[in-house]
Amino acid sequence: MIVEIVSTGTELLLGQIVNTNAPYLARKLNELGFDAVYQTTVGDNRRRMASVFSIALERADIVITSGGLGPTQGDITKEVSAELLGRDLQLHEPSVEHIQAFFKRRHLTMTNNNLRQAMMPTGAIVVTNHRGTAPGVIIEHGEKTIIHLPGPPAELEHMFENSILPYLTNRFGGQGVIISKVLRTFGIGESILEERIRQFILAQKNPTIALLARSGEIHVRLTAKADSEDAARALIAELEASLREHIEEYVFGMDEQSLEQVVGEELRRRELTVALAESCTGGGATAKLTDVPGSSAYLIGSIVCYDNRIKTELVGVAPETLQKHGAVSQETATEMAQGIRGRFAADIGIGITGIAGPDGGSDEKPVGLVYLAVAGQQGIIVEEEHFSGQRSAIKTRAVNSALDLLRRYLQKIK
Amino acid sequence: MIVEIVSTGTELLLGQIVNTNAPYLARKLNELGFDAVYQTTVGDNRRRMASVFSIALERADIVITSGGLGPTQGDITKEVSAELLGRDLQLHEPSVEHIQAFFKRRHLTMTNNNLRQAMMPTGAIVVTNHRGTAPGVIIEHGEKTIIHLPGPPAELEHMFENSILPYLTNRFGGQGVIISKVLRTFGIGESILEERIRQFILAQKNPTIALLARSGEIHVRLTAKADSEDAARALIAELEASLREHIEEYVFGMDEQSLEQVVGEELRRRELTVALAESCTGGGATAKLTDVPGSSAYLIGSIVCYDNRIKTELVGVAPETLQKHGAVSQETATEMAQGIRGRFAADIGIGITGIAGPDGGSDEKPVGLVYLAVAGQQGIIVEEEHFSGQRSAIKTRAVNSALDLLRRYLQKIK
Repeated sequence: MIVEIVSTGTELLLGQIVNTNAPYLARKLNELGFDAVYQTTVGDNRRRMASVFSIALERADIVITSGGLGPTQGDITKEVSAELLGRDLQLHEPSVEHIQAFFKRRHLTMTNNNLRQAMMPTGAIVVTNHRGTAPGVIIEHGEKTIIHLPGPPAELEHMFENSILPYLTNRFGGQGVIISKVLRTFGIGESILEERIRQFILAQKNPTIALLARSGEIHVRLTAKADSEDAARALIAELEASLREHIEEYVFGMDEQSLEQVVGEELRRRELTVALAESCTGGGATAKLTDVPGSSAYLIGSIVCYDNRIKTELVGVAPETLQKHGAVSQETATEMAQGIRGRFAADIGIGITGIAGPDGGSDEKPVGLVYLAVAGQQGIIVEEEHFSGQRSAIKTRAVNSALDLLRRYLQKIK
Repeated sequence: MIVEIVSTGTELLLGQIVNTNAPYLARKLNELGFDAVYQTTVGDNRRRMASVFSIALERADIVITSGGLGPTQGDITKEVSAELLGRDLQLHEPSVEHIQAFFKRRHLTMTNNNLRQAMMPTGAIVVTNHRGTAPGVIIEHGEKTIIHLPGPPAELEHMFENSILPYLTNRFGGQGVIISKVLRTFGIGESILEERIRQFILAQKNPTIALLARSGEIHVRLTAKADSEDAARALIAELEASLREHIEEYVFGMDEQSLEQVVGEELRRRELTVALAESCTGGGATAKLTDVPGSSAYLIGSIVCYDNRIKTELVGVAPETLQKHGAVSQETATEMAQGIRGRFAADIGIGITGIAGPDGGSDEKPVGLVYLAVAGQQGIIVEEEHFSGQRSAIKTRAVNSALDLLRRYLQKIK
């Protein structure tokens, strides 16, 4: 079954708000095995909305709309679809009572225009709104089905979960199951990764393979369709095993697992503590580590040593090192990692120093040059990185690379 | 001129990422006076993409697409539009050189599939990508114009601002002008703010007024339409002056000005330096201050004192204070601010301590309780805050509130 998601509302067209309903519905529908392959957004304009609904009903079996069911004159979704399908709008008594009760419960005054929300296309299935006043609507029209949902995300999501999802499952039943799994990689570029697994990409059918770049990470998404969840998971497991043979060293986690979660688990498992000395990242690596609940178990703290005086006086970098090699150097990064490790009595110390730009670069040391160091009982690793982009992108890449370096350091410790 | 925005990418259809490109383009186009009245999303499927492009070219004068210009086999945007418009794809030598230079600068290896990005429809205007490798494309085809932009937001936005916007203005000129101005407020809730300016909201016509909540900030956006930019700006200036009479103390900046930029400018203007002692925010406030280029002029650094040992040994909180009042207390926040100020020899010290959760709360000190302190020559301010929401929301609110407290502290210094 082909599904089109139509989002209505001039505020979406003006770019004043980001559309979160469409991705929510898309995710849910795909999980159910429906092919939600078109998404359209249109404003509160009768002619254009009618044309969008009409194209959608032609190319999709099921059209799901959001928005435009409210009490104002701008709420025209039901009127447009009723006219398009040649149906009248009639006052739906149970909805009137529901709306009245809603207002009474909240000690609010109901105005006459609230009754607009109780006008329903003839022959429609009316869906109660347990989170607001505007009911949902399902219209079965020949081979096609059109479903109108309210725009506020809390109302839409509650109605979808509790009424639309059971309706779709009962009526259309076994669409099969679509399952996705994401392998998250770090430290390899998109095109090199694609080269490595090209044979699988060219031969892909079911599961399919998609590559996605996400602030320095490349995600490999495997999507399988099968009759049951078990069968879909088995298809994914088989392909995943083959892919891992080619990219194993870069895979740090799966699905929603973040680098900071993975690093946190590895530290916790080994009962190790960590401290950081950050310069160009300004505390961003520490802040990311503390995004994980319970990170106080392994994070002692950090010093953000923006001023060179702090690097020497508090972190313990030798003044001669700064003089001879500069603040952005392998040597300074190393002494930052060693210094903070000693100073904070941590098992592992991390040093980050670089040039985030836009100023401060030179031919020898350009903007984007970053040194990362990890020091611990297993010795020291230092890496030189060259990042591109804006200041914020360079900072983010440096933060993520530092966490990945720590991850790789930990892997060497059994 | 009617514009349709077409977002391509299966990851959008699957709902794995939220589409931010479409609202960005919509906002920009509307400001320019174009009517961006359709938005469509389609996956990386040749047949469906061709049909979506074809419908868009029928109902719109200008079609702007995002995504699908990358090096992989799934990147088919140019192929689909070339075929639809009956054009060939040819290797574009300047783009090859640009891509080669990009890889060389970053010490990366270029693979053959990167050349896909340099294949261009015949007769197209090729737009250089200064933030990545995939060039943009403008095809003027009879009465219609189709513009292909890369998918990564940083690349798309830079290309739109610097190349597409001048192109559209030169070619299509006077569409009338729509200008928006945003007054950014902090420290006041949306409904209280709305009450304060209710008379203006009810009477709005041109300019219109919209309120938007953005991670603790409430933005008041004024949008005026007029024949010239000057006329639109005059309309906004008049309304802005009236609004400010009611909300002046909460307005910290305008348009894209962030709290950290405003605070940075205020510090710079007064030639003051700052240092931070952060606990529950994990370095997030320092990281935010360092997002501003040139922040090293006023930021000395910080200590993230996650472990209480660091609070006493390095920041200088008295062990008795921790024992008597606890790590999350007005007294500890104060001593953190004073301690870091002395330790780092900064003009102003900031202390942040709280419970970000989800664990660690109690009846007396619940999750979300945060103490913020600022210490300087003008004395000390401490504030107690109660934030709600998830761990990440509490951290973000604490970071923003600390910056706003610093801003208010600085305002008292002439």
